[in-house]
Amino acid sequence: MSSTLKVGIVGYGNLGRGVRMALEQNSDMELVAVFTRRDPKTMKHEEGLRFEHVSAMEAYRGEIDVMILCGGSATDLPEQTPAAASLFNTVDSFDTHAKIPAFFGAVDEAARKSGQVSVISTGWDPGLFSMNRLLAEAILPQGKEYTFWGKGVSQGHSDAIRRVPGVKAGVQYTVPVEAVIDRIRSGETPELATREKHTRHCYVVAEEGADLAGIEREIVTMPNYFADYDTTVTFITEEELKREHSGMPHGGFVIRSGVTGEGTKQLVEFGLKLESNPEFTASVLVAYARAAVRLSREGASGAKTVFDIPLGYLSPKSAEELRRELL
Amino acid sequence: MSSTLKVGIVGYGNLGRGVRMALEQNSDMELVAVFTRRDPKTMKHEEGLRFEHVSAMEAYRGEIDVMILCGGSATDLPEQTPAAASLFNTVDSFDTHAKIPAFFGAVDEAARKSGQVSVISTGWDPGLFSMNRLLAEAILPQGKEYTFWGKGVSQGHSDAIRRVPGVKAGVQYTVPVEAVIDRIRSGETPELATREKHTRHCYVVAEEGADLAGIEREIVTMPNYFADYDTTVTFITEEELKREHSGMPHGGFVIRSGVTGEGTKQLVEFGLKLESNPEFTASVLVAYARAAVRLSREGASGAKTVFDIPLGYLSPKSAEELRRELL
Repeated sequence: MSSTLKVGIVGYGNLGRGVRMALEQNSDMELVAVFTRRDPKTMKHEEGLRFEHVSAMEAYRGEIDVMILCGGSATDLPEQTPAAASLFNTVDSFDTHAKIPAFFGAVDEAARKSGQVSVISTGWDPGLFSMNRLLAEAILPQGKEYTFWGKGVSQGHSDAIRRVPGVKAGVQYTVPVEAVIDRIRSGETPELATREKHTRHCYVVAEEGADLAGIEREIVTMPNYFADYDTTVTFITEEELKREHSGMPHGGFVIRSGVTGEGTKQLVEFGLKLESNPEFTASVLVAYARAAVRLSREGASGAKTVFDIPLGYLSPKSAEELRRELL
Repeated sequence: MSSTLKVGIVGYGNLGRGVRMALEQNSDMELVAVFTRRDPKTMKHEEGLRFEHVSAMEAYRGEIDVMILCGGSATDLPEQTPAAASLFNTVDSFDTHAKIPAFFGAVDEAARKSGQVSVISTGWDPGLFSMNRLLAEAILPQGKEYTFWGKGVSQGHSDAIRRVPGVKAGVQYTVPVEAVIDRIRSGETPELATREKHTRHCYVVAEEGADLAGIEREIVTMPNYFADYDTTVTFITEEELKREHSGMPHGGFVIRSGVTGEGTKQLVEFGLKLESNPEFTASVLVAYARAAVRLSREGASGAKTVFDIPLGYLSPKSAEELRRELL
């Protein structure tokens, strides 16, 4: 890169804070401002951090090379990404798999119109896991692919627990079934029901006097979320929840078990073991922010995914350095 | 792709045969001819396979979209790739890490002049392992990367054994030290000497009456190849060698142990477990052959590496299909 990349963050929850920290690890990037829907004056002012209201974004045209959008996929990003893409290069982690085609269309239209580059749906799934699914399938067209998640906290399932009457707080861990992973690693290609791949473990703080058996029953039979899994419910105190379950670990595996030639078994596996899901996702967003600016400077525009971007664009190193040091 | 890709193979050893088999798994590709330095008439004619002498290559201009070069890195590819690149799009697995910059330069010049695309140094290392080194380093700039190879047959080390006087035949396995990998997976970032990462196991068939103790001593003290490793030598019969050691398994791991935020540990791992190294490498070459043609049809030219090519180009699926099915 010829000059320091100027970056904006939109949304300052766990992911936004992760992006701020990731930017500090990348000396070719500089955080210009954090945009929030809250009143910027109420934000706890960390050293050297400028907060602005989201409505002030447009004033930063020309001062910010890329906006990293850190809102949620349910309601924030479907509005924020097309709006931001009409002004800036953007990167986001939109992760509602089923809605990606429509989201891509909307963002692509905005970004083409404005001449900006928008990298959508990056992070680790969608993102790194998707890349490994594609890579392994392209190399081993005859094969079977497995994605396992966890051990990790699922935000959606934790939210579902908290909506159960009588539940004060709670957290849900998705845990892959190790015995099944071992079978796949040893070359088997089993057909697996949902229940055989993951178990779900809920740690629940109940309201005083709540019907514990009723809560447990409501959780384990909840359609879409828990009914198709072996689910355990453990009641704990609020103190225990804070002490033992405030981290946001996650991870998982993408495994493709393929066959070449005459029955030769070939196994490709990609795995993550993350102490903090939002900090890692943020680090992926920052690497793709670099790629977005590079693509934009080359004259590209429109929505892009991890499938469209050469890996070399993620690194601050030159193509020569990369060939010498990493190939 | 708009039409079937017409492919040529140059060199018909283990890798070339692997490419032939991989092409059969990809219905968008068609093998036109195999080019060999041997007399084509002496080649065992498999059904539907056309052999030509390498000198006949030029006559296939316009009939072949991409040549997959299956020669060795020591002497074949430094000549063959630039020569083929002056006529065709090419893909190769040049793997002499230290010589990649010079090789890239020579191939790039030839391919730019002819207007062709040459994907160099693909396969799994260099290749998939390189991609994962780059990806993990770009995402986790603060971290430490480890590459382990094996368990697998090292061709170079097997050749070195066979050059020892009194040795009739032999094979060498590189074996990663599992205990060290477990430490890294649990979050440690040890500084490791060569000896601590891999052990080497040699299975040797001695000539009749040979000095076994002398052979063993000469192998385990051999500079560059064995002296820096804990090496075991096991003498076996020729029958045992054929029965137990004729496969070409390989594999390995690229692990990056990184830190985000304030000491949060994050682990990224990519691994391969291959029953046949040449068949897998061939499958990677075939996927990149597809990418080479696609880049060429878009008007690109020159030498490319795995760092320069969007992953989507490896797949026969359209960008829309990839977003819908794999993102």
